[in-house]
Amino acid sequence: MGGDRAPDEIVAGALLASVGRVEPILVGPPELDCGGLEHVIAHDVVGMHEKPVDAVRAKPGSSLVVACRLVAEGKADVVVSAGNTGAVLAASLFTMRRVRGIYRPAIAAPIPAMRGPTVLVDAGANADARPEHLLQFAYMGAVFAEEILAIERPVVRLLSIGEEAEKGNELTRQTHELLAASDLNFVGNVESRRLLDGAADVVVCDGFTGNVALKTIEGTSNTLLNALRSEAERSWRAKLGGLLLRPALRNLRHQLDPDTYGGAYLLGLRGLAVIAHGNSSREAVANAIRYAALGVEHRVVERVAEQMGSRVVASAGPKNPDRMMR
Amino acid sequence: MGGDRAPDEIVAGALLASVGRVEPILVGPPELDCGGLEHVIAHDVVGMHEKPVDAVRAKPGSSLVVACRLVAEGKADVVVSAGNTGAVLAASLFTMRRVRGIYRPAIAAPIPAMRGPTVLVDAGANADARPEHLLQFAYMGAVFAEEILAIERPVVRLLSIGEEAEKGNELTRQTHELLAASDLNFVGNVESRRLLDGAADVVVCDGFTGNVALKTIEGTSNTLLNALRSEAERSWRAKLGGLLLRPALRNLRHQLDPDTYGGAYLLGLRGLAVIAHGNSSREAVANAIRYAALGVEHRVVERVAEQMGSRVVASAGPKNPDRMMR
Repeated sequence: MGGDRAPDEIVAGALLASVGRVEPILVGPPELDCGGLEHVIAHDVVGMHEKPVDAVRAKPGSSLVVACRLVAEGKADVVVSAGNTGAVLAASLFTMRRVRGIYRPAIAAPIPAMRGPTVLVDAGANADARPEHLLQFAYMGAVFAEEILAIERPVVRLLSIGEEAEKGNELTRQTHELLAASDLNFVGNVESRRLLDGAADVVVCDGFTGNVALKTIEGTSNTLLNALRSEAERSWRAKLGGLLLRPALRNLRHQLDPDTYGGAYLLGLRGLAVIAHGNSSREAVANAIRYAALGVEHRVVERVAEQMGSRVVASAGPKNPDRMMR
Repeated sequence: MGGDRAPDEIVAGALLASVGRVEPILVGPPELDCGGLEHVIAHDVVGMHEKPVDAVRAKPGSSLVVACRLVAEGKADVVVSAGNTGAVLAASLFTMRRVRGIYRPAIAAPIPAMRGPTVLVDAGANADARPEHLLQFAYMGAVFAEEILAIERPVVRLLSIGEEAEKGNELTRQTHELLAASDLNFVGNVESRRLLDGAADVVVCDGFTGNVALKTIEGTSNTLLNALRSEAERSWRAKLGGLLLRPALRNLRHQLDPDTYGGAYLLGLRGLAVIAHGNSSREAVANAIRYAALGVEHRVVERVAEQMGSRVVASAGPKNPDRMMR
């Protein structure tokens, strides 16, 4: 029931993704038409504009909380939601709990860089974070890059406002020291102007900065492509040019489209959650589900726990590898 | 002597701008060919990669420090530099000092938003800042919007990761309260995806966030336009399309070009400094100089001081309104 286009596009996306070993479970009200997919009933809904923590506490019977609980109880392997990010975070945290040793879960968001994706972590879960949190974000991001992006020994960089170690704020300077002393493949700071260059496989930052960077990329791309479209309306010459360039522009839009990856992973919990864009189309929802399945197959939750030197003792992991849920 | 293309493009830019009441003074080594413009000799140079504060302290005879001192001493009205931003900040601070009541100078950078420029403040001077600093940045940004962008009662927004007051980090939540209680035309938070929409005349943030946002816009535009160019090389059809669209693309590039405004203002000091892009061409340098002259004519330094309820007692201001310098 989450997102701007629920439930229609969510159900349609789940049906699209329901191939092979992926078995979506839909969570929603009794009257929901699930097109033959498994249906777990939830009577309540968390709205897009409710205060996350309050809403999740007040609505244990909401589709979101029920869905997260299915993962926590081992009845599903991963939860996918296009709902309120804060609420997904809160519901996941309350039901699945953190991996032992992890201070804070973080959002790992793939950025469509030119030479293949870069993972940005934290993309918005922790607006205020400390250096030791960022160090863990780096480890989680590296697991993501290895398992989901299939990159061996991923290059890790710290997002800052200058390449030199001493450039940045208190947080980045202290984090730089921790990263440099770690066994990660840390190669230094990266400036945000290089985020789309593929200068790193993993880019680490606090959730405020990450969210600002991610939304700036999104806003700039949209503005630019829209401006290009209106420029191409201003004369016959430009109109014809735009027409001829249309396939190239479509490629470009596709290349930059965050929906290609379907969503962001919430890492550091004893179960997996994938957060899709709020305005996800059925294709984006299907991508998010496939992408969530990949995380289960690659045992991302267990790999994060191993990095922390701990083992996942709760129900997380592919106990039932043929099942996915929404 | 600052910037990647000094001294040639700087001198050429100064010559271009040397029209009417604008009289550039060039500061540099004795052998510098100033093409007939006034020349103040400085034997030393601050390099792009030197540590700003150390370099400025160690090199009182550098072109940058000498140029800033000319403003501090009332021998010039404003300094323009394409050099190391940190060094310009340090040299300006040491020589011109702060306006009474101002905690920290800040960088006000115009963003090329679709409906005309938005000023982002702080764009990088204060990587760590407190709520009371951001409140002052907002006042300084409003002066900039009124005087330089000619906007009456400019709309002020706080850059955050959600539109609601409580969304963001500790810094934005506390700053939101201060802004809401001020007499500014503060209308709430803005997300970075709307930076290019012209959703605000003044966008306030700490210098780390501002710098990340600014460089993300720059990087995303460059990546996108370059990708579009290579897409337009991949087939005859696309090539022809690109050719026909070329004037439209040129318009767009121009519209988004930060060099259109020539640079960023350093505000809060008893004199004015304009920081141009490090790779400024002669046209960009000339724009920066004209834009600096505008700040002098509109008495931006005095207006900032008035906002602080103080008066500029040092040498700042258009004592000699016919003179500009580099």
